[in-house]
Amino acid sequence: MREKIKALVTSRTWEYWIIAIIVVNAITLGLETSPLVMDRFGTVLIAIDQTILGIFVIEIALRLFAHGFRFFKDPWSLFDFFIVAIALLPSSGTLSVLRSLRILRVLRLISVVPSLRRVIGGLIAALPGMGSIVVLMALVFYVFGVMATKLFGASFPEWFGDLGASLYTLFQIMTLESWSMGIVRPVMEVYPLSWIFFVPFILCTAFTVLNLFIGIIVSAMQEEHEAEADANRQAIHDETGLILEEVKALRAELKELREQTIKL
Amino acid sequence: MREKIKALVTSRTWEYWIIAIIVVNAITLGLETSPLVMDRFGTVLIAIDQTILGIFVIEIALRLFAHGFRFFKDPWSLFDFFIVAIALLPSSGTLSVLRSLRILRVLRLISVVPSLRRVIGGLIAALPGMGSIVVLMALVFYVFGVMATKLFGASFPEWFGDLGASLYTLFQIMTLESWSMGIVRPVMEVYPLSWIFFVPFILCTAFTVLNLFIGIIVSAMQEEHEAEADANRQAIHDETGLILEEVKALRAELKELREQTIKL
Amino acid sequence: MREKIKALVTSRTWEYWIIAIIVVNAITLGLETSPLVMDRFGTVLIAIDQTILGIFVIEIALRLFAHGFRFFKDPWSLFDFFIVAIALLPSSGTLSVLRSLRILRVLRLISVVPSLRRVIGGLIAALPGMGSIVVLMALVFYVFGVMATKLFGASFPEWFGDLGASLYTLFQIMTLESWSMGIVRPVMEVYPLSWIFFVPFILCTAFTVLNLFIGIIVSAMQEEHEAEADANRQAIHDETGLILEEVKALRAELKELREQTIKL
Amino acid sequence: MREKIKALVTSRTWEYWIIAIIVVNAITLGLETSPLVMDRFGTVLIAIDQTILGIFVIEIALRLFAHGFRFFKDPWSLFDFFIVAIALLPSSGTLSVLRSLRILRVLRLISVVPSLRRVIGGLIAALPGMGSIVVLMALVFYVFGVMATKLFGASFPEWFGDLGASLYTLFQIMTLESWSMGIVRPVMEVYPLSWIFFVPFILCTAFTVLNLFIGIIVSAMQEEHEAEADANRQAIHDETGLILEEVKALRAELKELREQTIKL
Repeated sequence: MREKIKALVTSRTWEYWIIAIIVVNAITLGLETSPLVMDRFGTVLIAIDQTILGIFVIEIALRLFAHGFRFFKDPWSLFDFFIVAIALLPSSGTLSVLRSLRILRVLRLISVVPSLRRVIGGLIAALPGMGSIVVLMALVFYVFGVMATKLFGASFPEWFGDLGASLYTLFQIMTLESWSMGIVRPVMEVYPLSWIFFVPFILCTAFTVLNLFIGIIVSAMQEEHEAEADANRQAIHDETGLILEEVKALRAELKELREQTIKL
Repeated sequence: MREKIKALVTSRTWEYWIIAIIVVNAITLGLETSPLVMDRFGTVLIAIDQTILGIFVIEIALRLFAHGFRFFKDPWSLFDFFIVAIALLPSSGTLSVLRSLRILRVLRLISVVPSLRRVIGGLIAALPGMGSIVVLMALVFYVFGVMATKLFGASFPEWFGDLGASLYTLFQIMTLESWSMGIVRPVMEVYPLSWIFFVPFILCTAFTVLNLFIGIIVSAMQEEHEAEADANRQAIHDETGLILEEVKALRAELKELREQTIKL
Repeated sequence: MREKIKALVTSRTWEYWIIAIIVVNAITLGLETSPLVMDRFGTVLIAIDQTILGIFVIEIALRLFAHGFRFFKDPWSLFDFFIVAIALLPSSGTLSVLRSLRILRVLRLISVVPSLRRVIGGLIAALPGMGSIVVLMALVFYVFGVMATKLFGASFPEWFGDLGASLYTLFQIMTLESWSMGIVRPVMEVYPLSWIFFVPFILCTAFTVLNLFIGIIVSAMQEEHEAEADANRQAIHDETGLILEEVKALRAELKELREQTIKL
Repeated sequence: MREKIKALVTSRTWEYWIIAIIVVNAITLGLETSPLVMDRFGTVLIAIDQTILGIFVIEIALRLFAHGFRFFKDPWSLFDFFIVAIALLPSSGTLSVLRSLRILRVLRLISVVPSLRRVIGGLIAALPGMGSIVVLMALVFYVFGVMATKLFGASFPEWFGDLGASLYTLFQIMTLESWSMGIVRPVMEVYPLSWIFFVPFILCTAFTVLNLFIGIIVSAMQEEHEAEADANRQAIHDETGLILEEVKALRAELKELREQTIKL
């Protein structure tokens, strides 16, 4: 029984059906954003959505039954589990924001389509190598955030009123959005030397992001290089192998010759 | 007859004439944008434009006759065909926008000048490798677009009123244009926690674009590398070939020696 | 005595304690930015801060004693020294800005955590290779700054009033922030041809930054490549070494054969 | 006489003096931008400037005499010549803008300092490889510029009034400065579908710039690679050379052995 279900939920046909259902769900959820469509076909759309949610719950249940406890060891299964679980949470009252999270179900496409799964896997694999730089960046943000709050908080409460506001404003400055006309020029009217704070911050973060970027490129290249270098070494090995064989044959022949000579 | 026309339309001289005509057409179409010039030389410019269009129609007809059905198999021929066809569509009334598409004819330069054709070929060749990331990007946009419409649509109809408006606004945010001062700060005045939605969106898309970018660089390098690695392997092959030859000669000599010894 | 202290201040346990104290200090300094928290726990936070400062002074004193004059030869020790020294400067009156520099103490994490130290080391190692481009950039900024002041200073004193203002505005233009809508379009209303000044400036700086960037990538690759090339050469050396050994053994055998033949 | 002057103008000491004079001139020209300084030391600064100009004229004259006609074959000499020549042009009346070009003299530092000269050389060497992409970019700008003028010129004369205005606005859009809030959203209020024009334009130019960028990186890598590959091949050649020598020695010995055997 268990094996049969396992064979079913891991079959190609099953996969294609799930993809089709996700795509249909994506469309209905998209249509739900239009008040005009909701006025006319609202009940139908919600019925479809409920049905699809039911299918997803059954699918997860089947997979749970088929794989047993190992289901929770596969990160993609966990991903599917939580995305479906979100839809089952109560979403009335203050939690109505949870209802809009239902669209996250469309992200299940990533866990179902292998090529998307590989891309995400690649992105996540790039993360650990970025660890130190991200910590450094967090440190830079924290230090500049505390300083900005202390220095400019009193005069510009909207931008630097508390640590959170400062961090958000610094993030905005890092993306270079309206950093000068919107933030730094007004600040400089009160504190004329504040550019000493902001320009180094921009240069610092730009340089750090640049290095993050270069790190990713270099490590992406490295992998590719290693494969190439291996192929190269193999080619050399093959070439020299031919010679070695020839030389060994030569040696064997010489040995025979010596034996002949000795006999003589 | 057909062969002669084929030889004609694929000759260098023909090509140069077409380039010259395109450049002249580019200039006259540029001049047509100036009301001052149109007042004075309008009839002349339109006459030139009509003549050139005539020449292009004849050229396409000749090439169609020369190449027969295979004409439609070459993407560049199709490109030329459609660009000329646009100019032949009726452009009165509500379709007057089609008249401004006549300038697309200048793009025929790309299909005529080989180096430009190669650049475009390179750009298009880079596209398939980007497939998965583009699908992922579309997914991210769709999910965030639906969510933004549901969450902020009621309060900010101009920016998030429907799915289309949301997608446009998210595209603007992705390009970092006025994302904070223009969009997110006003939204945060109504929904103070909305940065939880927008900041991850920016990081997500920035990271995805970055990976798209790195993918293109790495694959561009790869091609170049392969050529280099081939040259490398060839060099090794040549070097070891010399040795192998020498060793084989040695073996032949040894064989002769053995035969001599045996005779003795 | 000295050796004991040296062993103490370079031990793992010591290091972990310092990291813990820095993190605690980071949190208290962060909390100090909130007036609400300061109202309630202000005296406690300041007491903690003073205690930690005391610990840091003692730590630096111990390291100074342990390492002697060599303490000042290690750049990271100097870094620690100055960061602690800042906190000891008087910060009353006009120097109250120095008080906000206390948060710089958190940067000591960089000198304590080895992986962060390595990242910063890498960033600094990338700087000398950028020397010429940075000088070139400074030259471009200076030349355009002087010109902008002379050309636009009279009409736009806020943006180009003096050399400093011009350099700041040009930096803003280089980051592309509001360069057109905010600066160049208003300037073009007075000097219609001023785009001849600004567009080349943008292209110039963009191209220079691009080259700076490429320089860093290429040199980062180069290091990696050299390591790879060395490994490659070693592999070749090993392969050919095998053959060489075999050939030498062959030669030795042949020599013996000749001696045998001569004996005969 | 000529040889002596040639030796003088190409000597190290001469070079250092010229660098020193350029730096002094840079400082005086910078000081001239301050009305305060000009009020006090104006006559002195102008006198210094005139003297330095005189020195430059004499220097160019000496180099012209020393190198003869070949002076005009060196691009850097031409560069120096034109920069000094600009300062000699009349700059009264409507040509007063030329006076602000005097600061360009500071750029002579580039032609004097070898490392800067090399950087510029590198930048210029990167240009030809970009040829096709730059032509393509120009084509894209021209086509979109003509279309924008025709489509939006009537309603938005300030942004798309004539071809020049359109090209400038498109350049602004390419740099992503205020493209949406500043330009496209207002245009979309009149022409709701105009995003079909602008979004592809942004994607097109972003993709082209990206490819320009990648082209430069790849060609920068290529050069470096070739040097490495040559070193690699040399290493292989050395290794196999050793074997070949050994094998040849072996063959010689074998030949001797055969001769001995024949004698027997």
